[in-house]
Amino acid sequence: MSPSRHGARYVGQPAPRVDALEKVLGSARFLADITLPGMLHARALRSRLPHARIKRLDVSPALAIPSVHAVITNDDFIDHGSYGFPVKDDYMLAHEKVRYVGDAIAAVAAETPEAALAGVQAIICELEPLPIVSDVTQALDDDAPQVGPDRADGEHPNFLSRSIVNAGDAAAELNVADVVLQDEFSTPHQEHAYLETEGALAIPTPEGGVVIYCSNQSPFINRDNVAMALGLPPELVRSIQPPVGGSFGGKDDLNYEASAQCAALALKTGRPVRMIFSREESMVASYKRNAMKMWVEVGAQKDGTLRVCRFRGLLDSGAYASESPFTAWRASIHAMGAYRYAAVDIDVTAVYTNNAFSGAFRGFGNPEVNFAIEQMMDELATKLDMDPMDLRLQNALRLGDHLPHGQKLDESVSLVQCLDAARQKSDWDRKRREFARHNASNEIKKGIGVAALFHGLSLGAEGADYAGATIRIDDNNRIILTSGFTDYGQGSRTVFTLIAAEVLGVRPERIDMLRPDTDTAIESGPTVASRATVLGGNATRLAAANLRHTLDLAAADLLGCQVAQLVRDEETYIGPEERPIPWEDIAAHARSLGLQLSAQGRWQAPSIHWDHNAGRGEPYFAYHFAVQVAEVTVDMGTGQVQVDDIWAVHDLGKVIFPQGAEGQVYGGIAQGLGYALSERIDYVNGYLQQTNFDRYRIPTAPEMPRIHITLLEDALSAGPFGAKNVAEPAMVPTAAAIANAVAHASGRRIRHLPITLEQVLLGRNLMRPATADRARRGLLL
Amino acid sequence: MSPSRHGARYVGQPAPRVDALEKVLGSARFLADITLPGMLHARALRSRLPHARIKRLDVSPALAIPSVHAVITNDDFIDHGSYGFPVKDDYMLAHEKVRYVGDAIAAVAAETPEAALAGVQAIICELEPLPIVSDVTQALDDDAPQVGPDRADGEHPNFLSRSIVNAGDAAAELNVADVVLQDEFSTPHQEHAYLETEGALAIPTPEGGVVIYCSNQSPFINRDNVAMALGLPPELVRSIQPPVGGSFGGKDDLNYEASAQCAALALKTGRPVRMIFSREESMVASYKRNAMKMWVEVGAQKDGTLRVCRFRGLLDSGAYASESPFTAWRASIHAMGAYRYAAVDIDVTAVYTNNAFSGAFRGFGNPEVNFAIEQMMDELATKLDMDPMDLRLQNALRLGDHLPHGQKLDESVSLVQCLDAARQKSDWDRKRREFARHNASNEIKKGIGVAALFHGLSLGAEGADYAGATIRIDDNNRIILTSGFTDYGQGSRTVFTLIAAEVLGVRPERIDMLRPDTDTAIESGPTVASRATVLGGNATRLAAANLRHTLDLAAADLLGCQVAQLVRDEETYIGPEERPIPWEDIAAHARSLGLQLSAQGRWQAPSIHWDHNAGRGEPYFAYHFAVQVAEVTVDMGTGQVQVDDIWAVHDLGKVIFPQGAEGQVYGGIAQGLGYALSERIDYVNGYLQQTNFDRYRIPTAPEMPRIHITLLEDALSAGPFGAKNVAEPAMVPTAAAIANAVAHASGRRIRHLPITLEQVLLGRNLMRPATADRARRGLLL
Repeated sequence: MSPSRHGARYVGQPAPRVDALEKVLGSARFLADITLPGMLHARALRSRLPHARIKRLDVSPALAIPSVHAVITNDDFIDHGSYGFPVKDDYMLAHEKVRYVGDAIAAVAAETPEAALAGVQAIICELEPLPIVSDVTQALDDDAPQVGPDRADGEHPNFLSRSIVNAGDAAAELNVADVVLQDEFSTPHQEHAYLETEGALAIPTPEGGVVIYCSNQSPFINRDNVAMALGLPPELVRSIQPPVGGSFGGKDDLNYEASAQCAALALKTGRPVRMIFSREESMVASYKRNAMKMWVEVGAQKDGTLRVCRFRGLLDSGAYASESPFTAWRASIHAMGAYRYAAVDIDVTAVYTNNAFSGAFRGFGNPEVNFAIEQMMDELATKLDMDPMDLRLQNALRLGDHLPHGQKLDESVSLVQCLDAARQKSDWDRKRREFARHNASNEIKKGIGVAALFHGLSLGAEGADYAGATIRIDDNNRIILTSGFTDYGQGSRTVFTLIAAEVLGVRPERIDMLRPDTDTAIESGPTVASRATVLGGNATRLAAANLRHTLDLAAADLLGCQVAQLVRDEETYIGPEERPIPWEDIAAHARSLGLQLSAQGRWQAPSIHWDHNAGRGEPYFAYHFAVQVAEVTVDMGTGQVQVDDIWAVHDLGKVIFPQGAEGQVYGGIAQGLGYALSERIDYVNGYLQQTNFDRYRIPTAPEMPRIHITLLEDALSAGPFGAKNVAEPAMVPTAAAIANAVAHASGRRIRHLPITLEQVLLGRNLMRPATADRARRGLLL
Repeated sequence: MSPSRHGARYVGQPAPRVDALEKVLGSARFLADITLPGMLHARALRSRLPHARIKRLDVSPALAIPSVHAVITNDDFIDHGSYGFPVKDDYMLAHEKVRYVGDAIAAVAAETPEAALAGVQAIICELEPLPIVSDVTQALDDDAPQVGPDRADGEHPNFLSRSIVNAGDAAAELNVADVVLQDEFSTPHQEHAYLETEGALAIPTPEGGVVIYCSNQSPFINRDNVAMALGLPPELVRSIQPPVGGSFGGKDDLNYEASAQCAALALKTGRPVRMIFSREESMVASYKRNAMKMWVEVGAQKDGTLRVCRFRGLLDSGAYASESPFTAWRASIHAMGAYRYAAVDIDVTAVYTNNAFSGAFRGFGNPEVNFAIEQMMDELATKLDMDPMDLRLQNALRLGDHLPHGQKLDESVSLVQCLDAARQKSDWDRKRREFARHNASNEIKKGIGVAALFHGLSLGAEGADYAGATIRIDDNNRIILTSGFTDYGQGSRTVFTLIAAEVLGVRPERIDMLRPDTDTAIESGPTVASRATVLGGNATRLAAANLRHTLDLAAADLLGCQVAQLVRDEETYIGPEERPIPWEDIAAHARSLGLQLSAQGRWQAPSIHWDHNAGRGEPYFAYHFAVQVAEVTVDMGTGQVQVDDIWAVHDLGKVIFPQGAEGQVYGGIAQGLGYALSERIDYVNGYLQQTNFDRYRIPTAPEMPRIHITLLEDALSAGPFGAKNVAEPAMVPTAAAIANAVAHASGRRIRHLPITLEQVLLGRNLMRPATADRARRGLLL
């Protein structure tokens, strides 16, 4: 194709976020802003018991309310509304049983939200309480109440999944290691805490289908779920994503249910139906980050060389499977950290309980295991009297190494560079020395801690990894771009716009990115797992390249030369005669030639394979590497932890949208800070205790540390312009780095998130001894 | 939805053809107008023998020519380029054998067309002649040379397909009938004679795919064939249809081959490659209407009541199957004509020969069988001394009747009305009397003849019958419409535009119909079988209705009322306050609400079933009925036939685009006139004799009769606004009506098309007696 006279003009350069203006001005129409004439308001009846049999469900009193137009139950869906992937264990409305507090049982459509609530309250629903299991360590007991679905394979019905990684002879290595450390860790349920709650709007179409507006992450999955639940062909269901007020993995399952409920009510009433969750409803009913209990054992040589890691993890999936098998798998893959070992023995098990349910959340298991393994590294450094940075450098995965999983790392492996940069930027060596001196004689102590990570890019062996994009030039020379990926705040729309502008050689302002829409975009799998930039970026790049090829041909024709003789200079084409021809003239000439000014791009990720039974293979086709260093002040009189600074060094392969990438790092650190210090969902006998942000504390601006970002660019050949991922990795190491800094400051090792005043003050391990015993006895295996 | 203050404003009203201007001005860019820089020119090496084994194929001398860039053979395709549906017996380039004169063997891409020809001529291709079968009646002889592919089921390899229709006890009915008539008929191969010859242009894409510009009828099939032949995923092949200069069923197979050849050459050279057929190449290599031999027996009561029809047809498929099994099936379904019978026994067999090959052509078997059965009706009327119109009226299928096939006709059955209208408009009764008197004493004789028909709509039980369309409003309030159907001159783009305008309530000028394009349109099956108006029209109607529903909601919101309170008046919406709001304001308001201004429509034809073994079922979900009356002058001194007038009465259910519908009838009659009087392809030992329009005579303007069109509208509930089909039926009865008029004028019954001077002058049956004998001996069964 025709070369440009310049290097990259847009990719990697400062750019405004394409949807910044509408958000700043308040003109973006979020779901709750869309009100239609004749629209009904829907509300779900939700279980107040954590586990119960539905003895009687009589909706007629609700229907007797004049402004109530329809009530649906699971009988209004095909196969009772059964859905779910990879395990089809959930229902659009509860079938026979409720399994958690908040489980939806019926849904009402009425003229007003108040009438819908009155309808919900009028429904006669008799629930017969069933015994519950709320403690993850009791879920697989012989006498544990059954939460998961019946199964024929002899497994405990509360057993959901098990993922292993195996290399070498871990037992033998543990026997011969100079140093062996064992410890237990736990991480809590975390709420996504998006600004916008869940909801859906369904509009019945004249041909008997339905259009869904919903703020979920994966509109194609939503379309397919609604079509399946309603028995409609998928082409009669359309799912459109309006601007989304945050998601972090959290806007899927409950939004699928809301979409199906609204769709059924819309088809039943012939009117648009909208459901918007209250904050309390969202907190109680929505899925969370899986809580996890971990038991870790590492062995090393005296010189600090890591030899072996044994890891047992127990993941609380709650009442339904949701994405927990994938979370458990990703946790198992990353459990040993980004280091070289002679042997690993990793085992992560996910189980059902009656603690609401857990699913996708930024990082998918890696923030959990990183909190454990990165503290183990520091404990080992302490034991061996080594600097934690040195220990990591000594064992860090390097280019050409094999992962313990068996995969050779042959490009874009930058952990050593990340460690070096973090060490230097944070002034690590000086602070480690000086803080130690300072702390010896001060109640207000200072600490600095580090955590490193690797993070597999995209779905990995979890799923088929493909993407598509379309691009066209309209008659007014606007460029219209679609992607199969959604942007729920992470900035993908801007990333795709910059890539298309770069390849086409036009200003980004010319490009309009359409909203995600199953009728106009190409299905590209779910928008999860930090895959949008690489997968969607490549599809966009190819679509733009295909379109540019057409323009090149037209330009060569107009300029009377061959394509190879063309040069592009900003928005012009130049042929051998050196007279620049505006881009618009080329487009017009292409039209006059009869050429179609549109194109598609499709991209398929490199092929990989994971052997689930052997725990060996290539889990991901590429990895993000990063290091974060946290500097803290700890008041030993109160237990108060203040995070002063965080240095974040992330290798993005290539930065496409600098402000977006930095925004992801800022946001990830904020979410990691909350995870470290204050965020926690407690279930007491299955009842969630934090039903709003008064009790569920997310960080506010005054609590934020100074953040110092360094973005490395060790290009990935399969990435668009070399780019990799950043969305999830940004939050992965924050909690571990803070905990290591707290340990450095206080001498107290906090192994159970969040790092509360009590833990710092009292040094108490709040994990019940019984649990630790059970873990040692192998019950976690 | 919101009602309009008017009845239909656009559907059924006079309208310009949407692509009239570009065609009148010459600005439409046909395939041969698209020339790209770096483009290579392709040409195929074609067999000069009707049947031969390829002994040696050495392309190196061609490659030695400096400006020749690539040569391909069947080895350049997956599975040797095998393709074809319903029988996969053809190749993108001949494999091992050639089967007809014109069969492509290799293809060359070079800098100029002249160099490509030089390359073709330089190829060393040694062919070892094989015995041929050119006579369809010898194809199934035990010692007939094998033309068709090997088969394992014990059938003769030259046997292609057999289709039957069975009702009652035909043998018994023939025994008891008062009158039984038997006769033989034959119809010749017919050339489509499109103005534009075949060709393709392939442009390689940067991602390793290819974009095809090709004037075929069914771009999705072209895409899939090219993808299959090249081993590419379908999404890397894009097929775009530029304006097409006629097709009539004829632009598929050869264009699929040209597309695949150009695509392979483009991928091999990395440059655009275009192939344009010369007229001679098109005449020799392209497929034709199947020639057909027919033996018909009808039995009736003395009062004219039809009792039974036995029919044996033998269809010459030539060297490859192409669409012939479908043609044979449609011929069998329509063989008995649109009449009531106590019993029918229909059997149509298709066989392979070395007579080039035959495939899709307007009417798909119905013009052939109509020529036979409609003359049998006249012979029967003569025998019973009845008026041919009366005989038809007495036996015509009526509402509530069952077809002989078993299907109940429960709507839109208008044959009687067609007969009545044709009788009255043509002044039939007076002319039948007066011409008989005139002819008794004149050498220049006058005749008037009639032919009736039914014609199954769309694919029928031949295939899955679905369609899709998309519609959207762009930011400048242009409405962009796509269809999965193509317009190769029949006017579908205008039909769809009018339907969308009507449903949306906007002027047709607002609507831009995109060109057919596999990347932007929804796959809708092939554009054949007169299915575009009903299938594509319904999809367009639904797409527009879905879009209008969104606008209605926005209008109601803007006007502060319910949708049911809205009224539309031209391009405005009016609410209870009676102030008209322009359509553009509604669109703007919808955008501000966050609603997507685009929609899809999908339509699936009513479900039907045909039992091929029993010869019973519902062959089509609806039928077109029509009658044509021809008035002729016959010079008995020269044999010259002049067609003076044709009255054409067709029931279209509802006329959407009046000029288009009438254009179809004019064109169909012109094509039927050529079929009747002059068009004929002869194969002498497999060699086609008419290689250009000097010897293949199509009618010219001076030969055209006065045409009097009456369009009835007996609405079909499944049709868009009630519309049915017209494209194919328009030519079905013309030849039979003319032959009946010639018989009325001359007393000579011409049973073998075309109606040559010799036949009229000499009254000679040119069908060889041997063939008739063979038919009687049952060899045609």
